[in-house]
Amino acid sequence: MTQQAQTSQRGRLVLAEIAEQPDVADRLVTAASAPGGELARVAAAVREAAPRMVLLTARGTSDHAALYAKYLVEVQLGLPAGLTSTSTLTVYGARPDLRGVLWVSVSQSGGSPDLVESTAAARRAGALTLAVTNHAASPLAQAAELHLDVLAGPELAVAATKSYTAQLLALWLLVQAWRGASLQPAAALPELLAKAVGEDDVDAVAARYRFVDRLVLTGRGFSYPTAREAALKLMETSYLSAMAFSAADLMHGPLAMVDADRPVVVVVPEGPGGQALVPVLDALHERGADVCAVAPSGLAPHATVRLALPSGMPEDLAPVVQIVPLQRLAAHMALARGLDPDSPRGLRKVTETR
Amino acid sequence: MTQQAQTSQRGRLVLAEIAEQPDVADRLVTAASAPGGELARVAAAVREAAPRMVLLTARGTSDHAALYAKYLVEVQLGLPAGLTSTSTLTVYGARPDLRGVLWVSVSQSGGSPDLVESTAAARRAGALTLAVTNHAASPLAQAAELHLDVLAGPELAVAATKSYTAQLLALWLLVQAWRGASLQPAAALPELLAKAVGEDDVDAVAARYRFVDRLVLTGRGFSYPTAREAALKLMETSYLSAMAFSAADLMHGPLAMVDADRPVVVVVPEGPGGQALVPVLDALHERGADVCAVAPSGLAPHATVRLALPSGMPEDLAPVVQIVPLQRLAAHMALARGLDPDSPRGLRKVTETR
Repeated sequence: MTQQAQTSQRGRLVLAEIAEQPDVADRLVTAASAPGGELARVAAAVREAAPRMVLLTARGTSDHAALYAKYLVEVQLGLPAGLTSTSTLTVYGARPDLRGVLWVSVSQSGGSPDLVESTAAARRAGALTLAVTNHAASPLAQAAELHLDVLAGPELAVAATKSYTAQLLALWLLVQAWRGASLQPAAALPELLAKAVGEDDVDAVAARYRFVDRLVLTGRGFSYPTAREAALKLMETSYLSAMAFSAADLMHGPLAMVDADRPVVVVVPEGPGGQALVPVLDALHERGADVCAVAPSGLAPHATVRLALPSGMPEDLAPVVQIVPLQRLAAHMALARGLDPDSPRGLRKVTETR
Repeated sequence: MTQQAQTSQRGRLVLAEIAEQPDVADRLVTAASAPGGELARVAAAVREAAPRMVLLTARGTSDHAALYAKYLVEVQLGLPAGLTSTSTLTVYGARPDLRGVLWVSVSQSGGSPDLVESTAAARRAGALTLAVTNHAASPLAQAAELHLDVLAGPELAVAATKSYTAQLLALWLLVQAWRGASLQPAAALPELLAKAVGEDDVDAVAARYRFVDRLVLTGRGFSYPTAREAALKLMETSYLSAMAFSAADLMHGPLAMVDADRPVVVVVPEGPGGQALVPVLDALHERGADVCAVAPSGLAPHATVRLALPSGMPEDLAPVVQIVPLQRLAAHMALARGLDPDSPRGLRKVTETR
């Protein structure tokens, strides 16, 4: 194979999977509307159990989907929710009383031993357990009482992309079905995702940040998980020090780090979360920060560069689309640096931690 | 004032407050043993309410104390616990049903409007509310039904140090009093802290990392909050890209970033949390990472440099002492860079977010 041919192969897997996201969303939305389908059955079982609280457990990319679900549960279901610290069950052997708890484990592979072990322990402790995975036959899907398939299809790239947006959408659909809300707003997603995977503004931003080695990302509320997930993609594929903070936490200390050499990516949705970012954007502007806004046009007008998002998305669904330009930015920045985003050093697709 | 005199003043506030920590611990331990004192009254009220779960809310440094308390609650009380996403109440106006919930707000100043607002909302939603602050007359202390004073005395440095260890210790004492366990293990802390503030190994590590601009910190379980808090101190005072991960999350992606230019600080306690770090230390050793172990002698034998911790501390109390060499490292690294750790650019002591 010539060197040129090898180079042209770089990032092939992750770029293909990013491009698949409109199809995955279409598949999930179609399956969700099937009466008596998996989503309807899981939602009915959860409603019947009437949990008093929700605990979510996950690692890596899936942890950001779990964080997104935490906002949905708190805001739309009015239930307290928490992200678990897996080690309390697996390392310290805690045996909490989990009656009245819905325990949701989110994992692409369904294979990480600590998730399987902690989910089994939660089930023994009285929780109703639900696994949200991309592998219906996985150990995690078997360990939990209920399973929801995110239907992303085989994911081969080490950097998870389509399984992430599939997790977000599956969790959104579950919460709507649980509370008896319409699934209709999701019908627009395949088209919005198709637009997002085709936007041509990513190359200019990737070129601008070619020599950046430190980056801050921020968001608020529903869009904060987007900042976290984008940071992980940039760490994994370009080895950047990409640090994500909720916009409120950014103001409590880390703001001191922001200077002209450290661009700040701000994820700005329409809605209350975006409005809450206005004073943060003002503070960044005042410091002369180089701001990349991931936002519909009209929001964050002082940003230095932009990754465009469509207007009119409900804020709670926007994260499914928001992450796409950032996935593409991570892949293109790796390519611009001569790296292969499909071969992050030292990582395997399935990480086993205990 | 001559330039030399000005220079000699740098870091005066934060270094003095770091040195006060043995006295603060002594004050807290003495107050805790008073029958009918504040701790006993708060613990009795919490026991009587018999909460089914605990939600913790905080920002910045206090958020790391809240995370520590989450481990205590889950492991030692066997109750589910979660860190709240403040914005769900303040930005999105969620009105969850919080009956059966103990809501703990942790804040040095007790002044941040979003904490006051969310605590008041939690109280209206049926939670038993407890404020853990350094200001008994603060709005947060007034908003909550119960208050626990961390007795750190006025904290003037922007970078919180003594109020952090005081929060950790106050929360530890509360959980022990709540579950009826002995407070005796805390009696050793003032002496252990006095030793930690006098260790002379910090200068060598600060000198070694003088030109580092990116750093990874990690820990597991009870010691993970130490890594988070140390990262914040380094960000605030030296503007480093200091990124903290739980050791399990580090293996799910961010490990790809670790190279010879990016040292890794690993907080290694005695006990199960420290044992769970052995494979992580091995993986770092295999990659040729420059590892700084914050550990008792004998643990993490392959570390490149060390910040010594005393042996024999119970793992659940070790975080109170572990952070001290890291606070000192942050201050000394700022000084080594010609910065004033008492004047982080763009920060004020009390951050107001909504």
